[in-house]
Amino acid sequence: MSATHSAEESERPGRIMAGEMLEQPVVLRRVLDRGAPRIHEVAGLIAERRPRFVLLTARGSSDNAALYAKYLLEIRLGLPCGLTSMSTTTAYGARPDLRDVLVVVVSQSGGSPDLVASTRAARGAGAVTLAVTNNPDSPLAAVAEFHIDILAGAEKALPATKTYTASLLALYLLVEGLRGEDGSAAGALPELAGRVLDRQDEVRRLASRYRFAERMVITSRGYGYPTAKEAALKLMETSYIPALSYSGADLLHGPLAMVDNISPVIAVVPDGRGGEALQPVLDRLRGRGADLVVVGPAAPVEAASAGFVLPTAGVPEELQPVLEILPLQLLAHEVAIARGQDPDAPRALAKVTETH
Amino acid sequence: MSATHSAEESERPGRIMAGEMLEQPVVLRRVLDRGAPRIHEVAGLIAERRPRFVLLTARGSSDNAALYAKYLLEIRLGLPCGLTSMSTTTAYGARPDLRDVLVVVVSQSGGSPDLVASTRAARGAGAVTLAVTNNPDSPLAAVAEFHIDILAGAEKALPATKTYTASLLALYLLVEGLRGEDGSAAGALPELAGRVLDRQDEVRRLASRYRFAERMVITSRGYGYPTAKEAALKLMETSYIPALSYSGADLLHGPLAMVDNISPVIAVVPDGRGGEALQPVLDRLRGRGADLVVVGPAAPVEAASAGFVLPTAGVPEELQPVLEILPLQLLAHEVAIARGQDPDAPRALAKVTETH
Repeated sequence: MSATHSAEESERPGRIMAGEMLEQPVVLRRVLDRGAPRIHEVAGLIAERRPRFVLLTARGSSDNAALYAKYLLEIRLGLPCGLTSMSTTTAYGARPDLRDVLVVVVSQSGGSPDLVASTRAARGAGAVTLAVTNNPDSPLAAVAEFHIDILAGAEKALPATKTYTASLLALYLLVEGLRGEDGSAAGALPELAGRVLDRQDEVRRLASRYRFAERMVITSRGYGYPTAKEAALKLMETSYIPALSYSGADLLHGPLAMVDNISPVIAVVPDGRGGEALQPVLDRLRGRGADLVVVGPAAPVEAASAGFVLPTAGVPEELQPVLEILPLQLLAHEVAIARGQDPDAPRALAKVTETH
Repeated sequence: MSATHSAEESERPGRIMAGEMLEQPVVLRRVLDRGAPRIHEVAGLIAERRPRFVLLTARGSSDNAALYAKYLLEIRLGLPCGLTSMSTTTAYGARPDLRDVLVVVVSQSGGSPDLVASTRAARGAGAVTLAVTNNPDSPLAAVAEFHIDILAGAEKALPATKTYTASLLALYLLVEGLRGEDGSAAGALPELAGRVLDRQDEVRRLASRYRFAERMVITSRGYGYPTAKEAALKLMETSYIPALSYSGADLLHGPLAMVDNISPVIAVVPDGRGGEALQPVLDRLRGRGADLVVVGPAAPVEAASAGFVLPTAGVPEELQPVLEILPLQLLAHEVAIARGQDPDAPRALAKVTETH
């Protein structure tokens, strides 16, 4: 009996992703306790080199983590940043002058050949290179001058979850370290993450409204925008719903035409200036009769069709992305299962994508 | 009789957009003949300031033109580039150190308050600022140190068409000017654009396959990637089809799960290294049974389900985006009309979007 039960359990769709999502409080704690000292040391060594410009290189979920780092670097450190268009070096052989440039490469596996090649090229062009990976033995960790280990443990489900939040926290600690700060504001995150992840029943009720959705729009502004992009990627990877993510401002410049009362909208509303800047967009969406679900503080959730109230009290806006994505990961998982998909193993994807 | 006829004509859906699309050969000729000398002069003045990094700021179609400029700047000029996350300055008050940075702001109207504010802030932070607009009397032209007029004439349809290709050509001439070159390779574009725009019947046949499409994926690589993004925006603005654009490499990192034989894919295949880098993605798409329509040279069009052969012979890869977008503009127009929409006046959009 128990053997049969356990065989059934081991075949339950999405059980690997579910387990990895629930590990996140432990992983965040590990990054704070074991990762932070090394991150602080690396940040000190990089700060001595006085970079004037930062280029961030990544793909997939790591690209959304890199975008989060871009906001931190620009707002908190005053360093102009760009996201790399990798084909400029790998396909076209561009060799930009990268003196005074910090190149940060974010990759869960550290194994993608194009990332390794472009990091090697950047180092050759004079950049300070830093790899942020979940594998200190990876080729990417070897080729970069500096390495930060996100300490998330092996991730086996194809949709990245714990490596995403671990990357966010590691990048936050890096930027705080570059500022000469210790990042202690992050100390409350593991416990808060646990409280959010305990609310699966709430997410399951939200998921039922997307059972038959043919498309979705996810919007945010500022620090919440990487969350919107990552949530869209999770939904596409697991449920195959075409999920379009836009910053609130870009949404008003065109794609709003696509939103009507049959296109559900999820808004990630930061508790802070990003949320304030998003307010006119929320008003426009309500005016169009959009089905609006809000992830954020209580007030905008209450004004929406439905939502998930995040525990943002006392959490600085720049740390909220670590929490915001959690109900959206759970949502992608629940919607996929409701639609008869296995979120652990989406069609067509391999865990380490070899792009060249 | 003729009064009635002309009233009907003036109400034909999409007639304004159609007229503006057909003006493109004349506009491109105007940029080459009347715009180029001033662009060359501005480029010379900027080159004297020896910028080491470039930040590009724009929204909507202009953001896709800015992305095209990013490829040119990185590949042809070796300058590291970034696209601005505007909310970092407008919502969060970031004041990055922009000495040695060239800030290029692209805006058809030159009127969006957030662009004006962020350009003023960039100039105050030490950047060399350049506005590229279709309105020399705009607030943006006034606030930037340098201005380039794209000379497209008034654009009245809401979807940008002639201002998009005029921006691409102006930005190409700018980058060539920064390199000390005259950009004469662009001389053939007006005539080639005219030949592409004459092939409306071919596009109409392609449009029929999207009459009932519920979603689309548009992919490319390298110089063609901004075209994929702009084509997706045109389709969303005019037909409200959720059109997702990905670089070929990013498509393999997740969203490919969404592509199957009911999700049509359009691939923009540059004739050159971008097209070569896209080849493995095209092979994967064919392997999944995707309905694949190619815009590009004859060989990949013949290997696809259908397509539109571009006259790329003798056109350098970096200039092909000016031609690639034309059949896709026509396509968006035809699909919108087939679905009973008016491409001139999409729901919910205003021509000058005031984001703050």
